[in-house]
Amino acid sequence: MFYHDGGKLQYEVKVEKPNAAFANALQQAIGGVQGEIRVCLQYMFQAWGARGPKKYRDMLLETGTEEMGHIEMLATAVALNLEAAPASMQEAATEDPVVHAAMGGMNIQHAISTCMAAMPVDSSGVPFNCSHVYASGNVAADMLANVTAESTGRMLAVQLYKLTDDRGMKDMLSYLIARDTMHQNQWLAAWEELGGPKNHPIPSNFDQNLEAKDFSYSFLSFHKDKDAEIPTGRWSQGKSMDGKGEFSQKSMEPFGGVPDLGPGSEKAAVQKKQEEKDDDSFLNLNSVF
Amino acid sequence: MFYHDGGKLQYEVKVEKPNAAFANALQQAIGGVQGEIRVCLQYMFQAWGARGPKKYRDMLLETGTEEMGHIEMLATAVALNLEAAPASMQEAATEDPVVHAAMGGMNIQHAISTCMAAMPVDSSGVPFNCSHVYASGNVAADMLANVTAESTGRMLAVQLYKLTDDRGMKDMLSYLIARDTMHQNQWLAAWEELGGPKNHPIPSNFDQNLEAKDFSYSFLSFHKDKDAEIPTGRWSQGKSMDGKGEFSQKSMEPFGGVPDLGPGSEKAAVQKKQEEKDDDSFLNLNSVF
Amino acid sequence: MFYHDGGKLQYEVKVEKPNAAFANALQQAIGGVQGEIRVCLQYMFQAWGARGPKKYRDMLLETGTEEMGHIEMLATAVALNLEAAPASMQEAATEDPVVHAAMGGMNIQHAISTCMAAMPVDSSGVPFNCSHVYASGNVAADMLANVTAESTGRMLAVQLYKLTDDRGMKDMLSYLIARDTMHQNQWLAAWEELGGPKNHPIPSNFDQNLEAKDFSYSFLSFHKDKDAEIPTGRWSQGKSMDGKGEFSQKSMEPFGGVPDLGPGSEKAAVQKKQEEKDDDSFLNLNSVF
Amino acid sequence: MFYHDGGKLQYEVKVEKPNAAFANALQQAIGGVQGEIRVCLQYMFQAWGARGPKKYRDMLLETGTEEMGHIEMLATAVALNLEAAPASMQEAATEDPVVHAAMGGMNIQHAISTCMAAMPVDSSGVPFNCSHVYASGNVAADMLANVTAESTGRMLAVQLYKLTDDRGMKDMLSYLIARDTMHQNQWLAAWEELGGPKNHPIPSNFDQNLEAKDFSYSFLSFHKDKDAEIPTGRWSQGKSMDGKGEFSQKSMEPFGGVPDLGPGSEKAAVQKKQEEKDDDSFLNLNSVF
Amino acid sequence: MFYHDGGKLQYEVKVEKPNAAFANALQQAIGGVQGEIRVCLQYMFQAWGARGPKKYRDMLLETGTEEMGHIEMLATAVALNLEAAPASMQEAATEDPVVHAAMGGMNIQHAISTCMAAMPVDSSGVPFNCSHVYASGNVAADMLANVTAESTGRMLAVQLYKLTDDRGMKDMLSYLIARDTMHQNQWLAAWEELGGPKNHPIPSNFDQNLEAKDFSYSFLSFHKDKDAEIPTGRWSQGKSMDGKGEFSQKSMEPFGGVPDLGPGSEKAAVQKKQEEKDDDSFLNLNSVF
Amino acid sequence: MFYHDGGKLQYEVKVEKPNAAFANALQQAIGGVQGEIRVCLQYMFQAWGARGPKKYRDMLLETGTEEMGHIEMLATAVALNLEAAPASMQEAATEDPVVHAAMGGMNIQHAISTCMAAMPVDSSGVPFNCSHVYASGNVAADMLANVTAESTGRMLAVQLYKLTDDRGMKDMLSYLIARDTMHQNQWLAAWEELGGPKNHPIPSNFDQNLEAKDFSYSFLSFHKDKDAEIPTGRWSQGKSMDGKGEFSQKSMEPFGGVPDLGPGSEKAAVQKKQEEKDDDSFLNLNSVF
Repeated sequence: MFYHDGGKLQYEVKVEKPNAAFANALQQAIGGVQGEIRVCLQYMFQAWGARGPKKYRDMLLETGTEEMGHIEMLATAVALNLEAAPASMQEAATEDPVVHAAMGGMNIQHAISTCMAAMPVDSSGVPFNCSHVYASGNVAADMLANVTAESTGRMLAVQLYKLTDDRGMKDMLSYLIARDTMHQNQWLAAWEELGGPKNHPIPSNFDQNLEAKDFSYSFLSFHKDKDAEIPTGRWSQGKSMDGKGEFSQKSMEPFGGVPDLGPGSEKAAVQKKQEEKDDDSFLNLNSVF
Repeated sequence: MFYHDGGKLQYEVKVEKPNAAFANALQQAIGGVQGEIRVCLQYMFQAWGARGPKKYRDMLLETGTEEMGHIEMLATAVALNLEAAPASMQEAATEDPVVHAAMGGMNIQHAISTCMAAMPVDSSGVPFNCSHVYASGNVAADMLANVTAESTGRMLAVQLYKLTDDRGMKDMLSYLIARDTMHQNQWLAAWEELGGPKNHPIPSNFDQNLEAKDFSYSFLSFHKDKDAEIPTGRWSQGKSMDGKGEFSQKSMEPFGGVPDLGPGSEKAAVQKKQEEKDDDSFLNLNSVF
Repeated sequence: MFYHDGGKLQYEVKVEKPNAAFANALQQAIGGVQGEIRVCLQYMFQAWGARGPKKYRDMLLETGTEEMGHIEMLATAVALNLEAAPASMQEAATEDPVVHAAMGGMNIQHAISTCMAAMPVDSSGVPFNCSHVYASGNVAADMLANVTAESTGRMLAVQLYKLTDDRGMKDMLSYLIARDTMHQNQWLAAWEELGGPKNHPIPSNFDQNLEAKDFSYSFLSFHKDKDAEIPTGRWSQGKSMDGKGEFSQKSMEPFGGVPDLGPGSEKAAVQKKQEEKDDDSFLNLNSVF
Repeated sequence: MFYHDGGKLQYEVKVEKPNAAFANALQQAIGGVQGEIRVCLQYMFQAWGARGPKKYRDMLLETGTEEMGHIEMLATAVALNLEAAPASMQEAATEDPVVHAAMGGMNIQHAISTCMAAMPVDSSGVPFNCSHVYASGNVAADMLANVTAESTGRMLAVQLYKLTDDRGMKDMLSYLIARDTMHQNQWLAAWEELGGPKNHPIPSNFDQNLEAKDFSYSFLSFHKDKDAEIPTGRWSQGKSMDGKGEFSQKSMEPFGGVPDLGPGSEKAAVQKKQEEKDDDSFLNLNSVF
Repeated sequence: MFYHDGGKLQYEVKVEKPNAAFANALQQAIGGVQGEIRVCLQYMFQAWGARGPKKYRDMLLETGTEEMGHIEMLATAVALNLEAAPASMQEAATEDPVVHAAMGGMNIQHAISTCMAAMPVDSSGVPFNCSHVYASGNVAADMLANVTAESTGRMLAVQLYKLTDDRGMKDMLSYLIARDTMHQNQWLAAWEELGGPKNHPIPSNFDQNLEAKDFSYSFLSFHKDKDAEIPTGRWSQGKSMDGKGEFSQKSMEPFGGVPDLGPGSEKAAVQKKQEEKDDDSFLNLNSVF
Repeated sequence: MFYHDGGKLQYEVKVEKPNAAFANALQQAIGGVQGEIRVCLQYMFQAWGARGPKKYRDMLLETGTEEMGHIEMLATAVALNLEAAPASMQEAATEDPVVHAAMGGMNIQHAISTCMAAMPVDSSGVPFNCSHVYASGNVAADMLANVTAESTGRMLAVQLYKLTDDRGMKDMLSYLIARDTMHQNQWLAAWEELGGPKNHPIPSNFDQNLEAKDFSYSFLSFHKDKDAEIPTGRWSQGKSMDGKGEFSQKSMEPFGGVPDLGPGSEKAAVQKKQEEKDDDSFLNLNSVF
């Protein structure tokens, strides 16, 4: 169950010079794949589905609740930036260059669809799609998904910081950037606590003896030229990160044949010619098994 | 530029007992958010946009090429599993329980739209959407996105392994699971090589002095009851993971006021009443800045 | 800014007999267009963009906060219902009819993608898309959007109530249905307070003298037979609902001509033949204006 | 079954000064969520699924047919506005400010993908998605969905009217605005005829005694501070709008406990640690039921 | 402008034995990518944007109007098939096998979201997305898009015909299949009239001398083994289909180098290491141009 | 199984004057419905599901592999064009007109989300959606889908060629245009080899005697005025294209009645009034069958 605080904001949101194009750029931080709706729902769904040690569930709920307040801050920032949106094309075209640029980069829906308010869309106007809420139920996988989200989220906030010279906006973004710093550290800490690289391979409750072990720690090259140099690094030799194998590398070749799905079936809506057996097909994998 | 090998498969794909419902489950590994189309395009786009040290680009290209072959294997597996798809509802209803179950869990489009072949959709029939191709251009963030994808990808492959008792399918999956093991290790190794936790906060080319530093390493609690226990762990005290701060925790309270967007503007399509100033609004952040 | 309560639920959520197919049906109430993610974000975005009298903003914030707790309840209900999900197809096929039916109607992703937890998708597995968050910025239009959402939301909850015979689930749904009753009344009350039908036509800040007034209160029939009976009702005669006109009805005929867009332009990628002027085109609206 | 009239338009569509940016803005009225494709298909699907009194079905069919003609008018308007689209970037950059602005605000796909014709997309270029076709089968709920659609539709048309100073476009929009006025009244009239607020709670064929009645007419506050003022209005006291209850208000507290989903299952792809029972989990709702 | 006929159908739609699973399969013909909403809007948008000879526009308008009536027929068929939908899970589980199968294959939303009516979605419940409305503005390309749509549309109708043994449904489908036969012929005829293969390459108003002509009529092989056999057929030798070249075939090799995008820019949110120049990068295409 | 060539490109990709707006336009050729991701995956999925004569499968695999290399070229072109992207709004506003225009037409995500790299989206920023991968399993239908894709693909490439005056970009596009010329010819050749128009109606393995033959070769007019002229052409008389019928034309009239779905069911969430039988409904098709 959740509560609000009468609309008070986590941190101040002020705009010195409203700018409709910057309002549009801010939308990426609301409804983009790196944005706040995503992390809010992601942490919430991870919490609500959490099985196992309770503290991860609790931590997820804390930070999911924090992120809801970040959406609120950004939605406020968008609305305040839209106060300078031009009302007509004539107005935009004849104004000074800055207003003019704003018209070019603004989302026209802010003028014609929302009465100058934020929308749950990204900076291209594409609505947020909840398939981006990654909640796998495996706590270690989820921690990694969260570090990733906060890394791209901070990248975005940093770029927005550079894009504007509005002091109010820079101040608000300095807070959001700081929180992204913490959250990157927080999810890494949880992942570390669970074992860090030793957690892997995820999921840990599957018997690795059932894997095709020859391929479990080998970097495979697919360069057409078998003698081409294979890119080397920490991944090409030494102990594997999970401590369960030794890295190697090799040039790959096919271990399977050419599949033959056989002729088209009369059950299916094919052309008559497809129903005939092709004489030079070499192998019907299924029939020879 | 890319090449093929006349259709030869990386690893054998055989099906003992075709099963239309398992064909549908396999679709998740093709077109799901954890699936092979996603990782193939993700590694490719990361490679094609890579700026900086060349070896990461090369490695990404190698593994992106590998994944294209995984889609091919899975598409073959789906087609082979569809050979037992019932052709009519009558047939399905009167058959033995296993065929019957298959009908229940199959994707009817395999029968009516594709002539018994795979589609680039997930196991709910939702087409893959390329917004899931995460390629941020920041090499460390991209490595994390990749570990995440391979972690959820291996989870999926493991569940598919448990779901079937077809020997051919278990064999194919044992290969894919092994590759996911390697890829988790591979991306972790690259991330480690770039500095591991010391890479953070991502992006590393932004001056942390511009952050609101009071909030950079503090776990914030949003429990309504200020005295409630805050979930503790590696994230609540000690050196931060990036080595640049010290973890702390606190109960959060609002640092901002209640925003007031003011009355509706006549530029916008509001109700007349909204255009009046509300007397008891307490603060117009914008005007007092 | 928002707070949580350590995960306590608004109302009890218990499941007597876990049922994976019912878990799937419940997903519609989470991620369907009539579901709780939609209303939660809808009321929040309406609040965050509200201009004009403050009390509507406050009310929206209250109920948006309530809805976040409803998502939490439903996500819990889904997770509890998934405890009986079959782990393999063999298991499902040989079980008793009820488990078997469950397999037929379950979302296989609950077994292979989420470790038996809820997802932000509907009962077809389609992820929620934020374009359904209707927040127009016009307070009266928004109230109507909200009554609509709560009406279809209650319809859904009622059907879920009928679908199950689990006492725990019926109890939880009786609470959600009650809240939908209140919310329908609440948004209607706000709409009434703003003037009810007299609010219309929305938006009220546009001068109706600029409309093509002959068409403002007339029900138009498009039956191909001019003498066919026109459907009559409250809309066909008497004072209009907004009190600003008198209803009438008429059989429509075209007031415009046939448009002629002229020949294809060499600017465009057309066929050469399209670039020639067609002799029997009757009217180029643009050129005669 | 439907008929056309050789392409004659319902109302004149003329463009004085083609403007590619306005063409883009008009797309919102074609393929936006408030646009004409939506209402056309919405009224059609409501009609085709209508059960119960025939006159609502007939009325829906009439207006659905009308809306198809509105799409036609707008598509014509877009095509006529595109005649001034610049053919190259060079041309755009060196032209006068108005053309230049047009380039900034135009949809480049109009130049590179459609040979200067309308598309079924909104003004951000996002294709219309039929999940917005609301047809619940409950006639009262559908009437409300329709009033909502016409309210936001008229808001949009009004904003487009303000955006342009083209006489032809203003004339066309004055017709569409008038029709939106009628349609708002029409759907409200049908809703009123069915009982107006007395129709509620929707659906009306569910026994309200099965609701958790304590919560059916109470405005709940979720302010973290129990003593905070609750927003008051028509919804906080007096007879409820449906006439079936009395409004009240209260500060909410949790009636449910903290859910405990228990340890992760070996059926699922979790980490081994999740499979252990957490000692300090307080309540497994499922087991105590 | 469009008209209706009081709801009369183009052809009879009767259902002998309602079947909820078949209702779901029929949805593919309404909202699938091969379905009737697609062709209806596709022909309409092609007509509304048609530039050049008027008769193509007229023909498109005719058939677009026909397709609207096909959606109506199918929506009616879905509603009639849903009359046997089970009302509860208990009911489904204990019924005879046919009803039971129906439950397995039905779209549960037909029971919980639409009051037993059709939706604009496909047989997986995925809403139709208007990006499938192909209207390029090039009349020859559009005719080909239309033959394609009618080919896959007829495939679908044929499979639905096989799936059911309901006499009413078979009769309705025999009509739709016949219309698809005509429409395939119709669009081919128009394409032929415009020049058939001689229309190509589309678009015809671009000077082929500007192409890299060495590659215009050559089948390229990308087999990794330069000596592998290249698949031969009508495309590998002889006059090209457009009559403007001679087919040939060759094994492809790269004509471009390895791109080097250079170091990461400080404008971007990269890692510091990416900002350094990589010593062994071999070529910066941009700088050497 | 697939191979790469160390990143070498099929053809040179150079950019003289980076232009962020042109980078955005190029995105249409990557992630648009006419773009290279679509054809790459389309040919691959057609190959992987091919049943019947092996040579079509082989040919599809060849060209699918080629298209992967085209995505690579375009992604490189986008990255090189982004080097002039402005880093702040201030910078954009004060620069010369060309840079300024670029800001207007650029995708701001290139600056804030990707570190100046390509994304799998179209020129409106809409991500590619794999529902556009048409692979029907019927080889003739698939060849037509492919000609269509290459026709609109070439239209797009031609428009991009006109849009730019950068010599490097024009050179790259001249190659892609040439390949589209070949591919149009190639798929037409395969279709011709399979029988050309004689392939039709597709699918060819369905007995045409089961069609409602009166409607199989007749152009139907839906003009409301029965005496209106019907558009004539190759489709209105003479032998049908498939050689199996004779074209005719007629003015259509309804062969079906008005459907009556009967009263609402108490199974559904309707209003009570809908549950009553409507006295003047004329026909319940289902009950009279």
